[in-house]
Amino acid sequence: MTRGIFVAFEGIDASGKSTQARRVAALAEALFTFEPGDTPLGAELRRWLLDASTPMSPETEALLMLADRSHHVSSVIEPALVSGRHVVSDRFAASTIAYQGFGRGLDVRQLLDATELAIGQCRPDITILCDVDVEVAYARRHPDSADRFESSARDFHERVREGFLEQARSHPDNWVIVDAHGDLESVTEQVNGYLRKVGWPGL
Amino acid sequence: MTRGIFVAFEGIDASGKSTQARRVAALAEALFTFEPGDTPLGAELRRWLLDASTPMSPETEALLMLADRSHHVSSVIEPALVSGRHVVSDRFAASTIAYQGFGRGLDVRQLLDATELAIGQCRPDITILCDVDVEVAYARRHPDSADRFESSARDFHERVREGFLEQARSHPDNWVIVDAHGDLESVTEQVNGYLRKVGWPGL
Repeated sequence: MTRGIFVAFEGIDASGKSTQARRVAALAEALFTFEPGDTPLGAELRRWLLDASTPMSPETEALLMLADRSHHVSSVIEPALVSGRHVVSDRFAASTIAYQGFGRGLDVRQLLDATELAIGQCRPDITILCDVDVEVAYARRHPDSADRFESSARDFHERVREGFLEQARSHPDNWVIVDAHGDLESVTEQVNGYLRKVGWPGL
Repeated sequence: MTRGIFVAFEGIDASGKSTQARRVAALAEALFTFEPGDTPLGAELRRWLLDASTPMSPETEALLMLADRSHHVSSVIEPALVSGRHVVSDRFAASTIAYQGFGRGLDVRQLLDATELAIGQCRPDITILCDVDVEVAYARRHPDSADRFESSARDFHERVREGFLEQARSHPDNWVIVDAHGDLESVTEQVNGYLRKVGWPGL
């Protein structure tokens, strides 16, 4: 049985990556999945991660993300790949480096080491970064209040964006950067161009 | 404000460590706490860890333990120590090395790195290992069926016991090994002897 192809989509919120990830999965009847939260345990962890009434250190946040990812890999992603099915994940390991590392200032080397514990050899064959300006992303989410984007939040998302770009630049062999400022179709066209090269079905 | 003293008790199940830890805490009106599970988030993680209907890889188990510990440190242990209160924890970082490292075979170096992410500089001033033979511990828990101790379970607990002993031997400066085969009073006497040296109140 040939192992499936594993594609990860990364980017800041409202970069359009989820829509692109679903389109790509549909093309190949691949498994579409996401992080955090796409297992029963993960859904519970996601609830805690999003619960603003439970203050949590960046370290705890990172370890919960990694626990979710570890369970996601061993119970969902890896079994699918081994059975020959292609997998598309909306967020994967790079999100923790970008958000908890670049965004919240945790040590990136420590996060990479802990990531190795979480995912072992299960690495995406290609990671597609949907890159978009943080102001543009904010305006997409809050069309009526784009001018209320707090500067501390903007700075955080700028660091996260830079964290994704930095990872893409460091791994030119298996990362691609897609300009996600345009409309859905123009982004899909760029994504499909890259996936055609890795033999993605339906293209 | 002088920082509180942090004492951790470690050992296999039924080593008597919990009883000793509570006695020691009571002596000094210290905060008694435990792992995993002594926060609202931790209680939820503990429920998942103990739920046999959710199969989980050793890596996921370790990362959930570390997330619990990280939250325990930042929301319970560290604030108490900083306020000058002494803290006694029933299990801490060494349990993950013993159970998931020595017991389940995960890479100890990776676990130590991830532990550093979880606890930072918050280390016990003294770790007391209540060491007991695994057959003796099993007989304490199952007085009517000591002969039904499965060999795979026995081997696992032997590795865990060895994991604790190995850590104690590697850190003679801040670990002590207590012979926990005797009755509670004889064990308490040994524990108190060691704690007197670190200036524990009430001794």
